[in-house]
Amino acid sequence: MNRFFYPLSIAVLGVGAGSSNLAKNIIHNCQEMGYIGDIIPVGKNPGVVFGKKIITDPELLPQGIDLAVILVPSHLVGQYLDICGSKGIHRAIVSTAGYREFNDTNNSAESDLLNSAKRHRIRFIGPNCIGIINTGSGLCTPFNPINTKNFKKGPVSLIVQSGGVANQVAHSFSDEHIGFSKVISIGNKLDLDEISFIEYLIDDEDTEQIYLYLESIDDGRKLMEIAGKSPKPIIILKSNISRTASKVAKSHTAALSNNDRIVKGALRQAGIIRVSTIHEMIVTAKALRLPELKGRRLVAISLSGGFSVMLGDACEKYGFTCPDLPESLIRKIESFRRGGVIRMTNPMDFGDIHSMEALIFALQECLALDDIDGMVLSIMYGPEIAKMFGDEMSRLDKLLDVFAGISKKYNKPIGLSFFAERRYVEQLKAVNTYPVFNNPEESVHAIKILREYSSRRFCEPSDNRTEESRSQFEKIRSIVKVLPENKELNRSITTEDSGLNVIEKAIKNGRTTLSEYESKQFLASYQIPVTRELKVTNEESLINAAETIGYPIVLKGCSSDIFHKTENNLVMLDIRNENEAIAASKKIFSVMNQTDSTVLVQEMVKGSRELAAGLIRDPHFGPCVMFGIGGIFAEILKDITFRVAPLDQYDVLDMISEIKGNKILSAVRGMEAVDISILTDILLALGKIGMENESIKEIDINPLIVSGNKPVAVDAMVVLKSQQK
Amino acid sequence: MNRFFYPLSIAVLGVGAGSSNLAKNIIHNCQEMGYIGDIIPVGKNPGVVFGKKIITDPELLPQGIDLAVILVPSHLVGQYLDICGSKGIHRAIVSTAGYREFNDTNNSAESDLLNSAKRHRIRFIGPNCIGIINTGSGLCTPFNPINTKNFKKGPVSLIVQSGGVANQVAHSFSDEHIGFSKVISIGNKLDLDEISFIEYLIDDEDTEQIYLYLESIDDGRKLMEIAGKSPKPIIILKSNISRTASKVAKSHTAALSNNDRIVKGALRQAGIIRVSTIHEMIVTAKALRLPELKGRRLVAISLSGGFSVMLGDACEKYGFTCPDLPESLIRKIESFRRGGVIRMTNPMDFGDIHSMEALIFALQECLALDDIDGMVLSIMYGPEIAKMFGDEMSRLDKLLDVFAGISKKYNKPIGLSFFAERRYVEQLKAVNTYPVFNNPEESVHAIKILREYSSRRFCEPSDNRTEESRSQFEKIRSIVKVLPENKELNRSITTEDSGLNVIEKAIKNGRTTLSEYESKQFLASYQIPVTRELKVTNEESLINAAETIGYPIVLKGCSSDIFHKTENNLVMLDIRNENEAIAASKKIFSVMNQTDSTVLVQEMVKGSRELAAGLIRDPHFGPCVMFGIGGIFAEILKDITFRVAPLDQYDVLDMISEIKGNKILSAVRGMEAVDISILTDILLALGKIGMENESIKEIDINPLIVSGNKPVAVDAMVVLKSQQK
Repeated sequence: MNRFFYPLSIAVLGVGAGSSNLAKNIIHNCQEMGYIGDIIPVGKNPGVVFGKKIITDPELLPQGIDLAVILVPSHLVGQYLDICGSKGIHRAIVSTAGYREFNDTNNSAESDLLNSAKRHRIRFIGPNCIGIINTGSGLCTPFNPINTKNFKKGPVSLIVQSGGVANQVAHSFSDEHIGFSKVISIGNKLDLDEISFIEYLIDDEDTEQIYLYLESIDDGRKLMEIAGKSPKPIIILKSNISRTASKVAKSHTAALSNNDRIVKGALRQAGIIRVSTIHEMIVTAKALRLPELKGRRLVAISLSGGFSVMLGDACEKYGFTCPDLPESLIRKIESFRRGGVIRMTNPMDFGDIHSMEALIFALQECLALDDIDGMVLSIMYGPEIAKMFGDEMSRLDKLLDVFAGISKKYNKPIGLSFFAERRYVEQLKAVNTYPVFNNPEESVHAIKILREYSSRRFCEPSDNRTEESRSQFEKIRSIVKVLPENKELNRSITTEDSGLNVIEKAIKNGRTTLSEYESKQFLASYQIPVTRELKVTNEESLINAAETIGYPIVLKGCSSDIFHKTENNLVMLDIRNENEAIAASKKIFSVMNQTDSTVLVQEMVKGSRELAAGLIRDPHFGPCVMFGIGGIFAEILKDITFRVAPLDQYDVLDMISEIKGNKILSAVRGMEAVDISILTDILLALGKIGMENESIKEIDINPLIVSGNKPVAVDAMVVLKSQQK
Repeated sequence: MNRFFYPLSIAVLGVGAGSSNLAKNIIHNCQEMGYIGDIIPVGKNPGVVFGKKIITDPELLPQGIDLAVILVPSHLVGQYLDICGSKGIHRAIVSTAGYREFNDTNNSAESDLLNSAKRHRIRFIGPNCIGIINTGSGLCTPFNPINTKNFKKGPVSLIVQSGGVANQVAHSFSDEHIGFSKVISIGNKLDLDEISFIEYLIDDEDTEQIYLYLESIDDGRKLMEIAGKSPKPIIILKSNISRTASKVAKSHTAALSNNDRIVKGALRQAGIIRVSTIHEMIVTAKALRLPELKGRRLVAISLSGGFSVMLGDACEKYGFTCPDLPESLIRKIESFRRGGVIRMTNPMDFGDIHSMEALIFALQECLALDDIDGMVLSIMYGPEIAKMFGDEMSRLDKLLDVFAGISKKYNKPIGLSFFAERRYVEQLKAVNTYPVFNNPEESVHAIKILREYSSRRFCEPSDNRTEESRSQFEKIRSIVKVLPENKELNRSITTEDSGLNVIEKAIKNGRTTLSEYESKQFLASYQIPVTRELKVTNEESLINAAETIGYPIVLKGCSSDIFHKTENNLVMLDIRNENEAIAASKKIFSVMNQTDSTVLVQEMVKGSRELAAGLIRDPHFGPCVMFGIGGIFAEILKDITFRVAPLDQYDVLDMISEIKGNKILSAVRGMEAVDISILTDILLALGKIGMENESIKEIDINPLIVSGNKPVAVDAMVVLKSQQK
């Protein structure tokens, strides 16, 4: 793999001397960027490009070239790969477009490409890509002319599923003085894909942070597995999340859409940082250069009152607190005041103190505090103001050294921004000894990203939660630590079928859905609490069953062809006695199909808190567990979250803390707090079901009603995979 | 007022020749910025600053100076104002800090200031401010040294409640080549406030857009009134919205916090654009220079597939659609393709077309379409690439002229961004003939801001809603247009008290809350539908009342000292017959206080959709109507919205479309769509109540249950203002 990035020689196939030829730009870019290996142009017509003679007879290619870059019409790529193979070339970048992204049926060019590569054991990047930009070797294979002069080396590498974005991140990371090591444009990723390159970059000495721009995630499980083992932070910008974008994404890189809720949960589970713009990539790259953030307690200081107010708003928005500082420290800092006209608080308005010495004192004393985890700092800057700081500090590098030194000394991050003319901010960024953010809001955002990364794998609650829901999360976690053994989980009173039997029976009958009754039988076999219920087919057995279950009861007509029971008046709730039961059963039997008139007699589970849980099988991530608010709010609020199975307890707690309505689980309005250990077991069981039962396509438990403090599956449906393939 | 901004002469009070003197910077700043009027320094000690002799005997000040800028210790400000008054000065900027923001009790400095100003009829800005920067006159009163050389004139003026922010916006608007006309730092706004300056700027020829940075809104109604009449867009950054920020905001500008949900609703009602960062101010200023956006249908074009995907995601995120283009147009554009390898869709990947002519053709044809309202365009730029566009287009001004010309021709906005090295983006911005945004996401954000402004006063639904909820909004609106006359609104069957009587009675009894029964009586008098109910005090009358109301019924113990009825088991729901009623009444009477054992016999309103509505009286905005999701979700989801009373129908529709759970109002899960005309009347009535009843402090209707399709107040509480003042 290393020779893809550091080839001793490359052949560029498709070069012409004409002004509109694109392949020749590849040669130009490599030369400009200082690539010192051999570059051999191959083309149809003779000529000289950038001092290199075009080889028109491919047979004249020398043996053992490290890398071929191919930009010829798609129907010729196979032939050119054959030539490469015959010349002992085992690595190729196929830049050519016009594959499945353009025409996804009967694409003979694609099979030609694949067959030829297989025949000659050629590994390739692309097609439909611009290949590699490597500041370490000067390799620069994009076929558009690039100004490589301002590219900067840096600790970041990027895997990018778009040529334009690949170019832009190279510029943007350089403009921001972060620099980059490698940019890899992977295009349609027919052979080498993001997984291959993440593996390479994890071992690459020059790479400290791995960034991805993806329009599709194909093998989500593999991605999660690698990310889980990566000692380097992985950051993903996943686009193509809207129906609008999917129209063009398909024709761009043949990318199919992912279910974005699943992507969200999966990336979080894998400890991958997700960003949504290139700009946020930049902010992240700077944030990850700061010392680890161990908690949420910040000191916010600004030389302007207005910016200290905005810092305070941003801290709260991003889930941080600004604890009150010790009175003795406040008094010491106030002693530096000039006019004595500003009170010191946290956030702190430093506007009345015109002394670098005082600022350094305050920064050190604040960061030294045990209950402070980091700082956000917004400094005014301009040559006129710098004079106030004293001559030495007017040098930008000295100024940054002060902040870098303090941050290092206490091993705590300072989110640093300047309010100043833009050119000074850019000059400060260029010093590059400590990260400088564009504005106060961005500095807090950066600290939040750092927090998210610092806490990954420790399964902290979602970072956008309020203080309140966080403390609830802590409570939830403490409950789960002492999982009780003696839970009465299986509430099913019937045992006629074991869980697996109902599935086998349904498959034998050619059905793809289990009835409500069967579904609950199956769930109960995994210890998921379900309603106690009996199936009956006539009025007499109905009354007997009702006695067995005990009033109040619920009656449900469960003919297999009636899906929406409620809408067809086939559900009668809260039947309190025999009279009501008789009247209700008459109604139900009259509505139902005569040939299939099974009625479910069910305990009435009372509770105003309705949850939902389930399982879906995602094409890219496999079985995924769903949890969220149920009942009529399920469809309306869509307050749901997914995690990829199998889950562990922390995944479950994270799911619970992620939903917006999680407060509903605590003791509200005179109701008991929900027994989280039961809820945890239900979600763990759903994950287990997904892993153990290939035949199950989908499970939907809605509502999962909280009865007292215990969640019970009140309605459920299991959907099987279609048998015909 | 004009002389504040264009004074013929100014006196600066508090000047010294020492290096630490701040007031002398004011003189320096004015000189640097080209102020040509007289500047007269006044100070304690003789000396010369910037070529001006300090007057030490204030009596020597000439008569009739237009403006005094005062920076002396706060206890001396009163005396200096007296001098100003005696010299015929009627305008002052009081820069001095140390007033209520520092010490809010017994602040004699503040009363001295106010008394002296009143005595001499001096209008002043501040205290605790840096005054005015006016690119039109060169007046520049900040007391920190400023580099004014890069300030640019522009069509924007800003009113800022923070000195640091005032400086920064002057720099930022200049750096972005928007420029500014006037920046006004208003500090504690003890005399002239944002209202005074908005009024001035509305009439100011040099101002086209009015921006505010505020940490508090004191007279919210006045602000809304002025904004409602302003022909110029008003944009507000309201900070101090968190508890964290409020700690420092109070000591910064003595700003008290506002209820931010009310601020949100009120600004929207008044057609004020709200932004949350200085950067968003910049984006807004550029957006508002574009032609009006008349709808939500955009064409998204990029020279890179990746950016066209990201444009698509951003369009959907911000509530835009990208309609399919006519097949004939697609074919024409595709005929320009070079490799013929990219399909044309909307969003459109222009990566395969290397021709300026083709791009111009596509832009014109797309914008000419009737069903397209605007465009977002992301162009690759660099000198190497510019060559492809042809020589003429390689000049940046020519290139921008093309886009500006097309936008003007079709009178539709183009949200334009470039992917390029930063320096080229900055050069393109500097051309300044058409707005250039930093990146594709920002360009769509800008178009969204433009949309919000274009649609203000037409009460479009909240711009973050999905297509689905928007179409629902249209439906809602169409329903309301045919308000039925024959609504059975008043469901109350008792008439013993008129609405006003119950309030008078409560006030007479010294109570500050009405009972549930009284509250509903009052609401019913405003035609708000309430439950049918009767008050009883013993079992016999209870049974009679139940017969009158009709089973099923609800019993509620309504002793006045028991607030949380549910939690005290004083509510029994769904009582179906006399037996159940007798059993229930025994329980309730046994729990209740013997001396006060009134029980409410109420119809049982069934319905799983629970809403909430109410009224609060805000100290800054007066009576405000609340609407949102009720029941157990009210506290948990906090999905509520406010508008300032009185409301009109469009305000109500906007409220309804704003809540996240608004889908609950449509026909979901077999339930009827809610009768929006009744809901509208309820919210209008609450606003009317707020305007007509000064004695009412608060009303809470929760739940407002949707029975069938009709909302009914099932529980309600009216709280009165405390009588003792």
